Amino acid sequence: MQDSLITSPSNPRLKALVALRRRRQREDSRLTLLEGYDELGLALAAGVRPRELYFCPELMLDAAEQRDVVEAARSVGAQTIQLSRSAFEKVAYREGADGFLAVVASIERSPDELSLPERPLVLIAEGVEKPGNLGAMLRTADAAGADAVVAAEPVTDWGNPNVVRASKGTVFSVPVAAATTRETLGWAGARGIRVVATTPDTDTLHTEVDLTGPVAIAVGTEKYGLTDEFLVAADVRVRIPMVGKANSLNVATSAAIVMYEAVRQRSTRL
Amino acid sequence: MQDSLITSPSNPRLKALVALRRRRQREDSRLTLLEGYDELGLALAAGVRPRELYFCPELMLDAAEQRDVVEAARSVGAQTIQLSRSAFEKVAYREGADGFLAVVASIERSPDELSLPERPLVLIAEGVEKPGNLGAMLRTADAAGADAVVAAEPVTDWGNPNVVRASKGTVFSVPVAAATTRETLGWAGARGIRVVATTPDTDTLHTEVDLTGPVAIAVGTEKYGLTDEFLVAADVRVRIPMVGKANSLNVATSAAIVMYEAVRQRSTRL
Repeated sequence: MQDSLITSPSNPRLKALVALRRRRQREDSRLTLLEGYDELGLALAAGVRPRELYFCPELMLDAAEQRDVVEAARSVGAQTIQLSRSAFEKVAYREGADGFLAVVASIERSPDELSLPERPLVLIAEGVEKPGNLGAMLRTADAAGADAVVAAEPVTDWGNPNVVRASKGTVFSVPVAAATTRETLGWAGARGIRVVATTPDTDTLHTEVDLTGPVAIAVGTEKYGLTDEFLVAADVRVRIPMVGKANSLNVATSAAIVMYEAVRQRSTRL
Repeated sequence: MQDSLITSPSNPRLKALVALRRRRQREDSRLTLLEGYDELGLALAAGVRPRELYFCPELMLDAAEQRDVVEAARSVGAQTIQLSRSAFEKVAYREGADGFLAVVASIERSPDELSLPERPLVLIAEGVEKPGNLGAMLRTADAAGADAVVAAEPVTDWGNPNVVRASKGTVFSVPVAAATTRETLGWAGARGIRVVATTPDTDTLHTEVDLTGPVAIAVGTEKYGLTDEFLVAADVRVRIPMVGKANSLNVATSAAIVMYEAVRQRSTRL
């Protein structure tokens, strides 16, 4: 099958791609962007079926080898469109474009739609704003084997291209969901998931609580942490011990430290 | 005492400030830049004596209150220079400038110059490139109460303004040093500090080794991890368990997870 070819940077089709950088456009179309060879590979491995794949052999690190991913995308139904370098550079949104940009379905899932094991390990991020932090948390959740990541009162949507990028594509391999804080807490309560809220305002250390059961570890915004609504409703509040002079650990770092304490406690090797 | 005042963005003095963004210029002058009210406050609290403080009341969040920091800098010998908004914006290097930019002595210290307690907890970063990762590791080291952070074969100098920024000023409160890999390993060996190298290529988990003694936790570059030279010479190699599909945790996240396992093991509360 012959690929379509776009050589002009002013092709109207490219404008539609650029428009997907706006949240409103993503919400209306229920589509988002995924850029990069590694990220696309991860998404395909996770079962994502791209609608469209724009590729540019001139920008690929190894066009002969990487052509496989174009075939893989086509075999799961993607329309594949070859772009000239100038056309691709118009739609690429990250530095060091490597010649792969896909249009994929946005992730819109409520916590109720998650299918979880009996003793899930969940991460809840309430109000986190920075795409880089959400992406870092997804990488950690992926590595730690978390069963889901729930965004409560999300300021940034899971389809944000910078989240997709910072997550290295793990946004497609880790089950994610979004809901209000009230819905998230209600869902956890109904499922018997113990909500462990991180906050500086407690004497209990994160290493002093049992994280082996069904548990959701919760972190709040970069600036203010978890809301009072969340802290009051949580089953237990824990803090990470800090002796330093700076205000606090980065939110994604905090999430990683508590998630890996859960991994340690849940490990069958120790 | 009257502050000097610069209103013209083309004042030659401002050019000298901009030049300090270049590593070469920092190395030649042994000076670096420190921007931001919070960061400056942390540095002053850590005993840093700025040579020069450029400030812009128009950009301050609360000029009346924040004027205290100008006084504090002056009281430890800083020359204080007021800038117009347009002049300040020429020299500010971060988004959301808040009207404070200081010139401070660069940090150039070898591991031998570190004064350490009997049972130190040290972080070694070999070849780490991204200022954001170095800054994040400093924040973690600060929070975890690490006694020092050593950059081995540093690609990025501790005085890099983006390291200073990402560290939230903790580069001035956590003792830092730099050396070659060989020097770093020799120093650790001579001091009886056990070097714990993180790598995916081992069966030993980071939770399975004793981190309660004099210990240095080592992480490598974002792409390739620790060098063979380092891995061979390390006293023990550990891995963080990972079940996910993505390649690896971010290097700063990995450092945080192992550092906080050390904190857990060293805690007197458990």
